[in-house]
Amino acid sequence: MPIKLYFLQASRSIRTAWQINELGLDYDVNFSPRENGVAPAAFKQQAGGLGKFPTLEDNGVMYYESGNICEYLSDVYDTQNRLLPPVGDPARYKVLQWVHASEATYLLHGLAVLYAKWNQKDGDVQQTIAGLSKNMINDLNYLESELGKSNGKFLLGDKLTAADIMMHFSARFILVRELGTMGKTWPKIEEWLNNSEATASYKAAVEKTGHKL
Amino acid sequence: MPIKLYFLQASRSIRTAWQINELGLDYDVNFSPRENGVAPAAFKQQAGGLGKFPTLEDNGVMYYESGNICEYLSDVYDTQNRLLPPVGDPARYKVLQWVHASEATYLLHGLAVLYAKWNQKDGDVQQTIAGLSKNMINDLNYLESELGKSNGKFLLGDKLTAADIMMHFSARFILVRELGTMGKTWPKIEEWLNNSEATASYKAAVEKTGHKL
Repeated sequence: MPIKLYFLQASRSIRTAWQINELGLDYDVNFSPRENGVAPAAFKQQAGGLGKFPTLEDNGVMYYESGNICEYLSDVYDTQNRLLPPVGDPARYKVLQWVHASEATYLLHGLAVLYAKWNQKDGDVQQTIAGLSKNMINDLNYLESELGKSNGKFLLGDKLTAADIMMHFSARFILVRELGTMGKTWPKIEEWLNNSEATASYKAAVEKTGHKL
Repeated sequence: MPIKLYFLQASRSIRTAWQINELGLDYDVNFSPRENGVAPAAFKQQAGGLGKFPTLEDNGVMYYESGNICEYLSDVYDTQNRLLPPVGDPARYKVLQWVHASEATYLLHGLAVLYAKWNQKDGDVQQTIAGLSKNMINDLNYLESELGKSNGKFLLGDKLTAADIMMHFSARFILVRELGTMGKTWPKIEEWLNNSEATASYKAAVEKTGHKL
């Protein structure tokens, strides 16, 4: 039975689809658009009730949290350790730093801006966003600086890793939705995002899932 | 040379200190309080310039992101896989789901509330927080429900794992700071947090570092 991916539109689900394509695995997609901005209740039930996406089903087991799913797929199916170096290798924790930072730093600061936009009904929302943008701009400046140290097209050199797969969605989402970016631009980030989206595996994942921000 | 932990007061740094104590490793602490709510610039420089805490230094290499540090310490020093099962074991990804969720779900929703409090200067802040609380209460209800399924004192049974070490700070911080909790209480979460804080390794970490929320 092939892997099944529960894919909510305009979500972190694209990370998992991209990685599965990059690993050359067979998979089925159970796709849902959002309704009123959120996942439909029936789709949450199909995905095991937790209501978080992506959800991965493999050999009858459900996996949640895109970072966890990323590690699972790497450990089990990336037998040559192309995307994630083996346990104990210091290089593994350079990749995993980005895997964790994609949520714990980048989306944590970015979604705080989106949630403020959604939930603040009165007062000066732009002033709130300007305050929130300080973290976001620091984070994007750091990413820009680290890309300047890479000696290749991707975050950690010339080969795609799990760092790119996890960080790509965070950075693209933050830039497209302008979450605390205050009109600034980061040319190395744009170039790296374009390199990521030019990979055959990313293109195949978009075609298979219908991902669109 | 022992491990060095750069510990910012009232931060995720307690996770790392707790884990190092649990693993019985020797370590030095470089401690700093916050100044005006943030890490002092000189302390950021000492920790390698990124300015994120905890920072771990081991054999001359700096490690960032508490989830990444947690995985590093487990993979390298937890040779019996007490805190994190080995690569490929399905049990590993039950633990790692919580390791990732501690940031990508719990602190992501919790800090959005804290940041709204800090950055919204006018209008109805309580209304904003009430909107933000929906995610937070869902998340805490899920944690309460999962603790009800555990057949022991900890998240995944009767033995402490990396899931507890990462989730403890998130849940305790959210409850103590009342981040979108709207006056509700979760008895199983309280009991589990108390069980966590009653471990000898947690107590030793607090004593060594001076951690206080």
